[in-house]
Amino acid sequence: MISFRNDYSEGACPEILEALAGENFIQNPGYGMDKHCFAAQQQIRQLCACPKAQVHFLVGGTPCNLIAITAFLRPHQAVIAAETGHVAVHETGAIEGAGHKVCTAPVSDGKLTPDLIRAVVAAHPDEHMVQPKMVYLSNSTELGTVYTKQELLEIREVCNQLGLWLYLDGARLGSALTSADCGLDWKDLAELTDAFYIGGTKNGALFGEAMVVVNPALQPDFRYIEKQRGGMLAKGWLIGLQFEVLLKDGLYLRLASHANQMAARLKQGFVELGGALFADSSTNQQFFILPQATVERLEQAYSFEVWQKLPQERTAVRFVCSWATRPEWVEALLSDLARLGVV
Amino acid sequence: MISFRNDYSEGACPEILEALAGENFIQNPGYGMDKHCFAAQQQIRQLCACPKAQVHFLVGGTPCNLIAITAFLRPHQAVIAAETGHVAVHETGAIEGAGHKVCTAPVSDGKLTPDLIRAVVAAHPDEHMVQPKMVYLSNSTELGTVYTKQELLEIREVCNQLGLWLYLDGARLGSALTSADCGLDWKDLAELTDAFYIGGTKNGALFGEAMVVVNPALQPDFRYIEKQRGGMLAKGWLIGLQFEVLLKDGLYLRLASHANQMAARLKQGFVELGGALFADSSTNQQFFILPQATVERLEQAYSFEVWQKLPQERTAVRFVCSWATRPEWVEALLSDLARLGVV
Amino acid sequence: MISFRNDYSEGACPEILEALAGENFIQNPGYGMDKHCFAAQQQIRQLCACPKAQVHFLVGGTPCNLIAITAFLRPHQAVIAAETGHVAVHETGAIEGAGHKVCTAPVSDGKLTPDLIRAVVAAHPDEHMVQPKMVYLSNSTELGTVYTKQELLEIREVCNQLGLWLYLDGARLGSALTSADCGLDWKDLAELTDAFYIGGTKNGALFGEAMVVVNPALQPDFRYIEKQRGGMLAKGWLIGLQFEVLLKDGLYLRLASHANQMAARLKQGFVELGGALFADSSTNQQFFILPQATVERLEQAYSFEVWQKLPQERTAVRFVCSWATRPEWVEALLSDLARLGVV
Amino acid sequence: MISFRNDYSEGACPEILEALAGENFIQNPGYGMDKHCFAAQQQIRQLCACPKAQVHFLVGGTPCNLIAITAFLRPHQAVIAAETGHVAVHETGAIEGAGHKVCTAPVSDGKLTPDLIRAVVAAHPDEHMVQPKMVYLSNSTELGTVYTKQELLEIREVCNQLGLWLYLDGARLGSALTSADCGLDWKDLAELTDAFYIGGTKNGALFGEAMVVVNPALQPDFRYIEKQRGGMLAKGWLIGLQFEVLLKDGLYLRLASHANQMAARLKQGFVELGGALFADSSTNQQFFILPQATVERLEQAYSFEVWQKLPQERTAVRFVCSWATRPEWVEALLSDLARLGVV
Repeated sequence: MISFRNDYSEGACPEILEALAGENFIQNPGYGMDKHCFAAQQQIRQLCACPKAQVHFLVGGTPCNLIAITAFLRPHQAVIAAETGHVAVHETGAIEGAGHKVCTAPVSDGKLTPDLIRAVVAAHPDEHMVQPKMVYLSNSTELGTVYTKQELLEIREVCNQLGLWLYLDGARLGSALTSADCGLDWKDLAELTDAFYIGGTKNGALFGEAMVVVNPALQPDFRYIEKQRGGMLAKGWLIGLQFEVLLKDGLYLRLASHANQMAARLKQGFVELGGALFADSSTNQQFFILPQATVERLEQAYSFEVWQKLPQERTAVRFVCSWATRPEWVEALLSDLARLGVV
Repeated sequence: MISFRNDYSEGACPEILEALAGENFIQNPGYGMDKHCFAAQQQIRQLCACPKAQVHFLVGGTPCNLIAITAFLRPHQAVIAAETGHVAVHETGAIEGAGHKVCTAPVSDGKLTPDLIRAVVAAHPDEHMVQPKMVYLSNSTELGTVYTKQELLEIREVCNQLGLWLYLDGARLGSALTSADCGLDWKDLAELTDAFYIGGTKNGALFGEAMVVVNPALQPDFRYIEKQRGGMLAKGWLIGLQFEVLLKDGLYLRLASHANQMAARLKQGFVELGGALFADSSTNQQFFILPQATVERLEQAYSFEVWQKLPQERTAVRFVCSWATRPEWVEALLSDLARLGVV
Repeated sequence: MISFRNDYSEGACPEILEALAGENFIQNPGYGMDKHCFAAQQQIRQLCACPKAQVHFLVGGTPCNLIAITAFLRPHQAVIAAETGHVAVHETGAIEGAGHKVCTAPVSDGKLTPDLIRAVVAAHPDEHMVQPKMVYLSNSTELGTVYTKQELLEIREVCNQLGLWLYLDGARLGSALTSADCGLDWKDLAELTDAFYIGGTKNGALFGEAMVVVNPALQPDFRYIEKQRGGMLAKGWLIGLQFEVLLKDGLYLRLASHANQMAARLKQGFVELGGALFADSSTNQQFFILPQATVERLEQAYSFEVWQKLPQERTAVRFVCSWATRPEWVEALLSDLARLGVV
Repeated sequence: MISFRNDYSEGACPEILEALAGENFIQNPGYGMDKHCFAAQQQIRQLCACPKAQVHFLVGGTPCNLIAITAFLRPHQAVIAAETGHVAVHETGAIEGAGHKVCTAPVSDGKLTPDLIRAVVAAHPDEHMVQPKMVYLSNSTELGTVYTKQELLEIREVCNQLGLWLYLDGARLGSALTSADCGLDWKDLAELTDAFYIGGTKNGALFGEAMVVVNPALQPDFRYIEKQRGGMLAKGWLIGLQFEVLLKDGLYLRLASHANQMAARLKQGFVELGGALFADSSTNQQFFILPQATVERLEQAYSFEVWQKLPQERTAVRFVCSWATRPEWVEALLSDLARLGVV
């Protein structure tokens, strides 16, 4: 059984595993006050050309979103997200659990636009309604699409006009940055967002994410919130060390690039077979429309996610490639798709 | 300037004013543990033929919704509401502020249906999403429409099937019960809902609402939540006394009926003038489509709410009648509408 | 049965009742955007010589505390209160329900001191602990004692040194201001606190309190929080009108002064009888130590609060006088105390 | 520099490191729905002779406490803890952040007693106060002391009488179970508590804790809360696998026993030097009273926690031993203590 179910099925990339083993018997201070966290913070500030950025290492994606929103918003303020956004759908109401409404905008490709953002703000004119205050994007999105540099510039502009924070969920940031469509680099992220996180869990780390708080107005007391909401790891150095490794010599982007290449090959092969795309993704998540019969037979040899039932016995499915996906797995899947039929 | 802006512009109906004055120098125990609250609770239990119902007197509508949801749901559980529902739009995120997501369903007439409820539940299949657990209705709705007895029966049935609590916001309960369309009585409410509140503020009370918790599973420790969330009035007897008066000899329904009659006359006159309805309401809120020019001139002599801008220089407006609306005000408004033009 | 149980047993002082009746059929805008609220806000700003103060009319004391703390603090910040403080004990965890810890200091007379405040701050040095950020005082306190002007000056100074907000719960503010011990006036309150509220419920209003937010840093979006937490009354003008009346020609202080005088006569008489005080109060709450046998017999003719059981068959009890307390009630109580024995 | 600062300075015990490396390229399902989690759950149920127990793997101690309390309590309910308890002091108000008050009891040795618990409940008689509903213990405690079987039996009894849940924080459960004083085994824990967690982070795991929910009344929907509050790891199998290893052939207790032995040797040596104990601990945390001068010189070669300044130039310090502490470190420390002077 080969899994294309997600990009966090395996452990860590070998470089990380090795570094963890090498450090295992060294004594490090707790709670992220150690030399590995300090070094990785410095690497990130340099990558982003943002010496004033605060960097925090958190245990996972939901904690990142939950803690950032808790730290950045006042109680009556709300988040603007695509209706497919992770915070809107897949976090069991973590944001509402922290007291904040998620105001959603209808999207077809997983992406917010300046007009959608303006419409949400316009619909909330006074104190009888929540006050939209933060734009939540993920790059890449839940549908594998990416925000380009131009799109992010335009969203930044609307945020400036409307007094909104811009927060970017980078659970799959590597897949966006290495996508052919995107055109963003590390410095752009620091210039265009108020805060973003660099996802480790889905790109070769054992676990852990790096929250980068760019805007000084959002920095005070972040560690208090991080601790209060359960996101501060006692052995914080475990995450710091992993990011040290990931960000050295471009490993992070190489891992993401591999995942994207595997996905691109899968997409290309599928399209050549005459297959129809459910979403047009340039990143490591691919969304295909398959006959239901094919889906059922595929499930005997592959693990993947059934995304949505469609009319006429069709089903949208998601295949995810990762740093660990092997080329021969992709070829095997394409063979089986050819054999079972994609239309 | 005559106001049709809402049904809470005036103070209290004369019967209540008189009762408050009469009781003013009597010493009553605090926090709703007084003879007036006890008597009104008993009246409500008898009206509803529900001797086991718990009754609590709260200071307003948002506190009612906020406290009920806080008391009835666990942290991961969500409310199902029409996208126009008061809890979804007009309470500044009070429900999210209490930690709960409001899952909305698209509606054109302000009303949930069994199919809409089923669709929300179906879209939340597992622990990565919130768990819809309560259906929130208001009767009458934000658009003046009403749930009929048959509709409420069907929603009750779907709640039973899906394990959902059914909660009814009765801010304008009187207007629903005395609507020609509705067919519900007090006993039906107690039979078909798990909890509901009887709105006083918008139907002749100075202020205050009566929360009726029918389902014994939802009753424990309600007063703790009421106190914690700031809804328990020190002089609780003020509200108890008002409900004693309102529920004696059918005053509550007579006041609501008057409001509905004023509104019906307004609607009839408007339709006779050839006016177009924005929503087809049988209760005390009327939604008309008017030329923008008429709206602007009307605003010089009347206060009312501009609901929504429409294409072609048209505007949807809301006129609300109340227990205090005088017939001559309605006739004056109709005259002015005739003069200024409604199409 | 005469009640000395609290200062909110009766309705409203006659001046208020009359004003409410006179305004009853006037149509007023909702949610505190009416001429009475505007006028009362202006009166308060003038009284306090603080033209920049924001004033909000809320429904009760717990809502005031809950909403102020929600509006003023970030999630990791805590309140410093006397261990007997209302927010620490008598609000069913309203503050914790809003997410904030109440850090308490041990007191014998209900009053915080600069040293107690410094000790709480010193005990919370880093991000593994909450961050004390607001001092909560009530004046008069739960034990009837008052903060003098000098004491408030000193607490203000420690707040400045430690970066703490100073918030004063004025549920019984009138009783403090008219106490012989206190020496504070309206201007001092605005000068020395960041926010305070003027209690109506316990000093002659039917209900309602006036929150005065002095510090501009704490003012933004207060109405959003007020609405979200259920403290904004639809008929906000009811409270605005009452404060208009209360603050005209010193009525508010006259009512409080009457209550204090009644209490002073009671205290004097009790001491003359040889009675022992449980707390030495110069305000409208008096705390006496009585033989348990006397307590039991008194309860047949008077309502009052049993505060605490003491050794040797003694009991601390609380007698509260109010704007409505009649001199003959006090004399009757003193007679009965003399007859039943106070030692 | 040798660290006795805590028991989580190193990475993982070699057995765990090896298992993680061996599993690294195996694809596992996400969110704890994998064979390692299932196997470790089964091991724990068997150890505890409690086939009905639910087991959840969480990322850390604060998440365990926060999530358990969020899942088990209604909004008005409070936790009873020793004033030194981790939830009372060291979690930045995580419990209050989740809406619940922590009612503390004064203790000298870190331990609650039946009488202390009864006193907290007695002090909260009605709905104007929070409702104490859960007893929070940690074993071993913040002061290294342990609850014996007899003590836990008596606390269980008072919980039964008063309708309280009994929750045990087992961050250092291994050190308690292997302490000479304790007398508890795995089965006792399942019999006497409603829920407890088995700490991995402080006893040889890389990170992770196992929450055991014994009482079926507390089990429903725990995973929803776990996900909502950010405690559910995407690669949940990382924790499941670690507990598989830890609980096989008694490794967990062997690691803890080593830590206790190192600490016992340190204590014995210190007492033989004539040193005074700040707390009398039979577990891996030792609290000594040292001259301030000794502390300052020791800090040049050792890392440890300064616990509390004491009179007369004395300081209480904490030395923590762990599974990774080497005997020669302890001997070196004892030599240095002898040399620098302990009195």
